[in-house]
Amino acid sequence: MGATLDLASYLVSARLETIPADVRHEAHRALLNFVGCAIGGSREPAVEIAIRTLAPYSGTPSVPVLGRRERLDPLHASLMNGISSHVHDYDDTTPKNYIHPTAPVASAMFAYAGANRVTGADFLLAFVLGFEAESRVGNSVYPSHYDAGWHITGTAGVFGAAAAIGKLLDLPVQNMVWAIGLAATQAAGLREMFGSMGKAFHPGRSAQNGYVAALLAREGFTSGEHGIEGPRGFAPVQAASYDLSRVAAWLGVDFDLRQNTYKPFPCGIVIHPTIDACIQIARAHPINPKDIAAVRVWVAPLVLDLCNKKYITRGLEGKFSVYHAAAIGLVRAKAGLSEFTDETVNDPEVREVRSQVSAVAEPNLAEDAVRVEVELRNGERISKQVDHAIGNLARPMSDRELELKFQDQAARVLPQKQVSDLIALCWRVGELSDMRELIDAAVPRS
Amino acid sequence: MGATLDLASYLVSARLETIPADVRHEAHRALLNFVGCAIGGSREPAVEIAIRTLAPYSGTPSVPVLGRRERLDPLHASLMNGISSHVHDYDDTTPKNYIHPTAPVASAMFAYAGANRVTGADFLLAFVLGFEAESRVGNSVYPSHYDAGWHITGTAGVFGAAAAIGKLLDLPVQNMVWAIGLAATQAAGLREMFGSMGKAFHPGRSAQNGYVAALLAREGFTSGEHGIEGPRGFAPVQAASYDLSRVAAWLGVDFDLRQNTYKPFPCGIVIHPTIDACIQIARAHPINPKDIAAVRVWVAPLVLDLCNKKYITRGLEGKFSVYHAAAIGLVRAKAGLSEFTDETVNDPEVREVRSQVSAVAEPNLAEDAVRVEVELRNGERISKQVDHAIGNLARPMSDRELELKFQDQAARVLPQKQVSDLIALCWRVGELSDMRELIDAAVPRS
Repeated sequence: MGATLDLASYLVSARLETIPADVRHEAHRALLNFVGCAIGGSREPAVEIAIRTLAPYSGTPSVPVLGRRERLDPLHASLMNGISSHVHDYDDTTPKNYIHPTAPVASAMFAYAGANRVTGADFLLAFVLGFEAESRVGNSVYPSHYDAGWHITGTAGVFGAAAAIGKLLDLPVQNMVWAIGLAATQAAGLREMFGSMGKAFHPGRSAQNGYVAALLAREGFTSGEHGIEGPRGFAPVQAASYDLSRVAAWLGVDFDLRQNTYKPFPCGIVIHPTIDACIQIARAHPINPKDIAAVRVWVAPLVLDLCNKKYITRGLEGKFSVYHAAAIGLVRAKAGLSEFTDETVNDPEVREVRSQVSAVAEPNLAEDAVRVEVELRNGERISKQVDHAIGNLARPMSDRELELKFQDQAARVLPQKQVSDLIALCWRVGELSDMRELIDAAVPRS
Repeated sequence: MGATLDLASYLVSARLETIPADVRHEAHRALLNFVGCAIGGSREPAVEIAIRTLAPYSGTPSVPVLGRRERLDPLHASLMNGISSHVHDYDDTTPKNYIHPTAPVASAMFAYAGANRVTGADFLLAFVLGFEAESRVGNSVYPSHYDAGWHITGTAGVFGAAAAIGKLLDLPVQNMVWAIGLAATQAAGLREMFGSMGKAFHPGRSAQNGYVAALLAREGFTSGEHGIEGPRGFAPVQAASYDLSRVAAWLGVDFDLRQNTYKPFPCGIVIHPTIDACIQIARAHPINPKDIAAVRVWVAPLVLDLCNKKYITRGLEGKFSVYHAAAIGLVRAKAGLSEFTDETVNDPEVREVRSQVSAVAEPNLAEDAVRVEVELRNGERISKQVDHAIGNLARPMSDRELELKFQDQAARVLPQKQVSDLIALCWRVGELSDMRELIDAAVPRS
């Protein structure tokens, strides 16, 4: 029938009973990770500036922003949730298409559910569907779309938000087609923003724009009928090559949620293998940074395409520097939020080691692999090869590890008891009679 | 220095005294035409739906929507002005890049000036600069960007809105660079939406998004520094071929406003030659539609690329049908707003003539030219060639014709006296001490 109509038809007809149990569990993991990231990022300057700037333009402040005391209208709350959940580059990733999938979808959904009574079961279903819509639209244009310079989290994300909110609004098929079309015509976000606040703006804006698309479509605001596949639609315009069959193939059977991954380190995922290897080296061989003569890193070519910034001064830049990744792994033997601050990037010891790192693109290495060689001033050489970085599909974070990551982030904002209660609520999403129970637990109490 | 910084530097430094008198006059013509179109379109379903849907999400309703009694916050007012001014496809066009340039820029500016005291002189300067920024960014990627399927009014428009609002906010260069970057990363709009409400959504959304970009940039929300020209920036990502020198070449000397044109007919500009020729035939040879055996139209290939819809049922589709264009020209001998309603598209006489039209792409014809041949049942053939359609640069509408077009549109909404006063105010923009005098005159009095 065409990718847009096929997708819309599935979204409208799908029921929670048809979602396999393992997919539902993965949805809970994704939501837990998202809420932790949103709270953990909620005090960053990008969020502060966006709230300060746009609150005067908000409608009735009816909805909590996750992790904050302010309330905004649901559209602005979508934007803020999206910025905060991605600002540390700590949210989830589907390696098959490099989308950070939960932020655009869930940011809109938590805002919607703050303003409307939504059961946990309905929330879970809409989330699974929004995730799937986003990831499949992304699959259809990956990799050419991403390679060209699109930040696929923004461009595919708006489809996911429109689908999820459209499902919560219970749109009929025709209106869901228009919601998808109005999403398509707002698909935006350039990789040129990497290293600036503009990157985290993308999931926020895609959440907000997808939400608007669904609202307008419900009221009969029309779009083209073939937003994804039409000759001037998303895929032909925004990808040099694409495969439209990937949008609807095995819908309801294959779920991309099964291929979701969670980041152990708050930075670009392609430099995770480098961090992993360097941490392993530092833990096995306590090294005085002053003794390091050279660090050589062999990485997949994409890593240098994305993260080739060596001379940096800001924490945000460090998140996309393979040189910084190696340096903090070796100097700090860990890579948490505090390793990507302006302070750490400018730390003399880190800067010195960073300056000694050289990186070489090695086409034979997979994107989740790395080879690192540290040469000491005494001539000794220490090597480490990692084939699958921690957090990748082959070495997933456990439920418990996700809880620890959540605690580490949420404890910056909420008291410990509230953090524990919130974690428990996240695991119970499917059973909640009103998602506002969870949302209220995700903001500081006055 | 790079296109983004070059453009930002010019925008920040430009003063009204440096804008030539003919450019200022053309700015008045563009604003007059815009206000008329915004009022004329203000009662269309796309506007009604958008206001009904989004008013509950509006901040303090401080700003009038042109042509309407409702007030909204400035961002939502930007959106509504953009939809109403473009919904009839009656607004202006720069033929060199096919942008409808005034809607994205002025929609945001009238919203801003409804909420803040802006002198006419400052308004005029910011409008000229926003227009120029938009058109030059468009030039740099035209035609490959447009040919690929981008609705360039949406994609270039967001730059124009950001530049104009950035100028009104008196941004320093660094913040203007970020405003341009945040515009670049929101550049969106697909030609797949043509024939639906989604098309008019584009100038509205670009106005609103450019406004947001400028607001955020003022407060220090950072973007990439090379939003236009960076390797993952607007031009490389959104155009197969581009010429970045066109962004800043002869800034302050050449003004694209001088190449602006105004539509005599409320439909896609590429079918204007067909309408013009058919009206001329109908006026010279009164024809009974029943006597028509065949209508043959030879057009530039782009016309069929854009307007090849023959079997249509909606007024909006008629705006992009070369077949409908020929039919109304021959049957009605005019092409005003009433020739693009659902009723006229489904009128049996119009439908019958439309079914007899065939169109052929003729590479030797320019886009503002056409050849039409009408064959009657008695064997008689009537031919007409138009080399430059009315309204084109070679045959511009006069100031008086623009006033008549304004009256025709505004009289649908406002009393005659108010229309006359408003026209006079539009010609005096440069002298107004507060633009709210004009804005208040552009809404119905209660």
